[in-house]
Amino acid sequence: MDQHAQPGPLDEVVAGLPLVDHHVHGALRAAVDRPTFESMITEGPRPHSAGTAFDSQVGFAIRRWCAPLLGLQPHAPAEEYWARRCELGEDEVNRRLLGAAGTDTYLVETGYLGDAVLTPAEHAEAAGAAAHEVVRLETLAEGLLGEVDSGRAFVAEYPAVLEEATRAAVGTKSIIAYRAGFDVDPARPGEAEVAGAVDRLLGSASGRVRVEDPVLLRHLLWCGVDRGLPLQLHSGYGDPDLDLHRANPLLLMPWLRRVEPTGVPVMLLHNYPYHREAGYLAQAFDNVYFDVGLGLFYSGSQSAQIVAESLEVAPFTKQLYSSDAWGPGELHLLGALLWRRGISRVVGQWVQDGEWARSDAERVVHLIGHENARRVYRL
Amino acid sequence: MDQHAQPGPLDEVVAGLPLVDHHVHGALRAAVDRPTFESMITEGPRPHSAGTAFDSQVGFAIRRWCAPLLGLQPHAPAEEYWARRCELGEDEVNRRLLGAAGTDTYLVETGYLGDAVLTPAEHAEAAGAAAHEVVRLETLAEGLLGEVDSGRAFVAEYPAVLEEATRAAVGTKSIIAYRAGFDVDPARPGEAEVAGAVDRLLGSASGRVRVEDPVLLRHLLWCGVDRGLPLQLHSGYGDPDLDLHRANPLLLMPWLRRVEPTGVPVMLLHNYPYHREAGYLAQAFDNVYFDVGLGLFYSGSQSAQIVAESLEVAPFTKQLYSSDAWGPGELHLLGALLWRRGISRVVGQWVQDGEWARSDAERVVHLIGHENARRVYRL
Amino acid sequence: MDQHAQPGPLDEVVAGLPLVDHHVHGALRAAVDRPTFESMITEGPRPHSAGTAFDSQVGFAIRRWCAPLLGLQPHAPAEEYWARRCELGEDEVNRRLLGAAGTDTYLVETGYLGDAVLTPAEHAEAAGAAAHEVVRLETLAEGLLGEVDSGRAFVAEYPAVLEEATRAAVGTKSIIAYRAGFDVDPARPGEAEVAGAVDRLLGSASGRVRVEDPVLLRHLLWCGVDRGLPLQLHSGYGDPDLDLHRANPLLLMPWLRRVEPTGVPVMLLHNYPYHREAGYLAQAFDNVYFDVGLGLFYSGSQSAQIVAESLEVAPFTKQLYSSDAWGPGELHLLGALLWRRGISRVVGQWVQDGEWARSDAERVVHLIGHENARRVYRL
Repeated sequence: MDQHAQPGPLDEVVAGLPLVDHHVHGALRAAVDRPTFESMITEGPRPHSAGTAFDSQVGFAIRRWCAPLLGLQPHAPAEEYWARRCELGEDEVNRRLLGAAGTDTYLVETGYLGDAVLTPAEHAEAAGAAAHEVVRLETLAEGLLGEVDSGRAFVAEYPAVLEEATRAAVGTKSIIAYRAGFDVDPARPGEAEVAGAVDRLLGSASGRVRVEDPVLLRHLLWCGVDRGLPLQLHSGYGDPDLDLHRANPLLLMPWLRRVEPTGVPVMLLHNYPYHREAGYLAQAFDNVYFDVGLGLFYSGSQSAQIVAESLEVAPFTKQLYSSDAWGPGELHLLGALLWRRGISRVVGQWVQDGEWARSDAERVVHLIGHENARRVYRL
Repeated sequence: MDQHAQPGPLDEVVAGLPLVDHHVHGALRAAVDRPTFESMITEGPRPHSAGTAFDSQVGFAIRRWCAPLLGLQPHAPAEEYWARRCELGEDEVNRRLLGAAGTDTYLVETGYLGDAVLTPAEHAEAAGAAAHEVVRLETLAEGLLGEVDSGRAFVAEYPAVLEEATRAAVGTKSIIAYRAGFDVDPARPGEAEVAGAVDRLLGSASGRVRVEDPVLLRHLLWCGVDRGLPLQLHSGYGDPDLDLHRANPLLLMPWLRRVEPTGVPVMLLHNYPYHREAGYLAQAFDNVYFDVGLGLFYSGSQSAQIVAESLEVAPFTKQLYSSDAWGPGELHLLGALLWRRGISRVVGQWVQDGEWARSDAERVVHLIGHENARRVYRL
Repeated sequence: MDQHAQPGPLDEVVAGLPLVDHHVHGALRAAVDRPTFESMITEGPRPHSAGTAFDSQVGFAIRRWCAPLLGLQPHAPAEEYWARRCELGEDEVNRRLLGAAGTDTYLVETGYLGDAVLTPAEHAEAAGAAAHEVVRLETLAEGLLGEVDSGRAFVAEYPAVLEEATRAAVGTKSIIAYRAGFDVDPARPGEAEVAGAVDRLLGSASGRVRVEDPVLLRHLLWCGVDRGLPLQLHSGYGDPDLDLHRANPLLLMPWLRRVEPTGVPVMLLHNYPYHREAGYLAQAFDNVYFDVGLGLFYSGSQSAQIVAESLEVAPFTKQLYSSDAWGPGELHLLGALLWRRGISRVVGQWVQDGEWARSDAERVVHLIGHENARRVYRL
């Protein structure tokens, strides 16, 4: 399916990599209507008023790369694509697109709108792949907040709840970037301070509470560190709930200095447009890893440049692959396909120019594509 | 005139686009001396002490692309170019350079040193093109401040003055990035607060006042929103009056969340080196549009990369073309020529690689080159 | 030694440039063990726990470009490279690698771990090149702080000590970015304030003092301005002692507005990932110059893109070459080699595409490679 203008020296090796998608969500459980689908292929919170979400790199990439997998011509019009997709049904679409991604193992984060998408086990079956779970710290906390009646109880019970929820999980995830920004106090808050924050939250909330208090968010982050599993951090690019400039991973430096001695791996996700900054942190801190996941399928034909920029100052042992797909199987496929195309083109050129040995290049694509993830997550 | 190393599949279509230059200023009214000319092709406020302003990408681009239009060899030396330019005179230079730009319609912002450059109507005639006006909110306010005797009067009269001044205009423009930075309070200030700020300004000023008070600048911005026309915002790259990092468009996010419900289009201009950030905002907010205008002629042969980076996450319906030229007709020509070269090369490559359908590519260059502007500005 | 996929029109000229490396440190005085060597080819403060520092762009570049100079095959394995390096000894390694760099003149900054590396005179001899000294303001101050007994004495004596220390030097250097960040008060602090800060430092310190007080750092910076020599400023990329986002050179704008009237050249070093921002400052301020030194050898095969991005808005008279190498001769060689490869490829392509005249291109590589440095430092 992968078609370069000219074949490159790494194409075959890269096409065969058994990828570990170290940060992803489940594929859609059931068919949705077209406005809903379109809202799932943009970070804008509402449908576009100017045209359609297909008028974008990700839309063009869907028509280019997914259409043939559904039995259409490459570049089939959006209307034709949509009709065919509806005809096939979500199960068949998932089967075809996930199957073509060539992803061997998914690390599925389950904390975001979990009812709409497949569970890790279901996703694994649909994809013909393995899956492991990553637990979102804030979602877990919001569940516990519905059960406790005091801040003191929350503080006392959360570690055990986290331990239990992650018994079979391979990592944890924080969205403090979204809810507070990275420019928070890096220190672990005191238990009394956390309990007070929870008490205020419980006192004011009606119905399901939402964790937005910086003190509580910082506490959860440190609980994640205490748990010891690789800790994923949303960083950079995301929906406009966040102030993007406050999700610049460099703002984490004071916190990273405190966490580095614990040895707990910190996994910086997405990072666009701060991927160079993330690469710097991966060089500077022994326990920092990063990917350029979400930026790839959204930038489509421009994604090779982003892959190139991710291969600057970071050690090759500190970068991972992820799609950050959520929902439409198109995103799971495109994350893998565009990463493969990008790294194959960029590194392949270096091999052709005599700058990298072919054997080194092959080793690096294996490291980034799956081996680093297997090592860090102990898969 | 456009000469690639190799012809690309889009060259012909792109060469024929009837561009709408959605943010531009008039061409020079009359000949200037060489130091003045050189100061107009740099954002530095003073003539260079190290060499000449021709020793730059824009200088090389002038010698490469404008020299033949004045009857010289490509790459003619700066001295020869200057002599020929003086010989032809400003009218003829304008006629040749503006004529070659192939710009169909100019949206001319009239608020900056308007006496030195052609009016929209004169510019249109010199270019053989159409022109519409964009009104700078701060310039209009500074005029009114010379006529009122109280803050209360200013607050009361500005909306009608703006209405009158924009009766035939297609947009408004704010330079709050220059005067205060985007990290201001996003809220609409109260009328009493604004009146107080104006009273202080009137009390202290002798002669023409300059609007620098953040409260007053924010008020003008909201008046622009109230007016309902597309609202252009200088963003990023500009002269060193501004703190560039405070003109990062991401700092507008709190303000954009408040403005989005009004549906008033917000047009982020220039943005370099924050063009990826601007593209993100264009994806995230339904009413945000952007361009990479000013960055193109200043970066000359490197401009294709900037064009490529502008084609990442933003929908293709949300990006526009502009030159942001002011003064020398060279800049009007180069804005158009370099944009055409850049997008033709970048998107043409994707067509050649089989990533984009040719028909999609043609549609996108029409959208960015003129159709988006026609739709948003209701031309 | 330089091997492109295809020879470019500038290769020969660029290969012959007598480079001035305007910011560099001495080569290693004596052999070190492998963990120490590896710590010298990363900005991470500790050895990597994941693999080896050779698993990086700089590691691959060492194996590709330095191995043949030590008599090995290109891409020789790290173990083989290390064994051969030990066999040859530091003097011979320095002789071969420095000799191949083709650097004509080194401006050697002596303020960082000076005992471990060659003095400027020794380095010059090993390299078969000329060398001049650049004096680090903070290191000099820390020496004086060990000798004075009051803040008043420090303030009184530092200018004469600086004058004496720089009698034969060509520039000064500040690391305020590391110690305080660029977001400090841009004003020159009062002498009483400085004396007070020094008194507190002397009162609390045992043994060698470390200059971290922002007041004192700002004072030293202004003393550097007073001295009148080109003033080098570490900017951007460096080890994680600094908060990288606080080393963004744009944060210097308020200070630069105050310094520009003095005419003292301000040399922004490294700048990655803020090199576009540095280029902007070099356009906007008459006395600002920049380089992309440190980013080049660390990004290896990706360095050509960084060179390209450094050739956007800055005048060609305002950019310089540096390696920022410290210690291993590999870094001195790679700084030069990768800069040559990058600029040859980027500018050579523009010549091939007919965008730049060959004579202009040759002039620009001479300006950036050595002529700008000779002019600014009055070599």
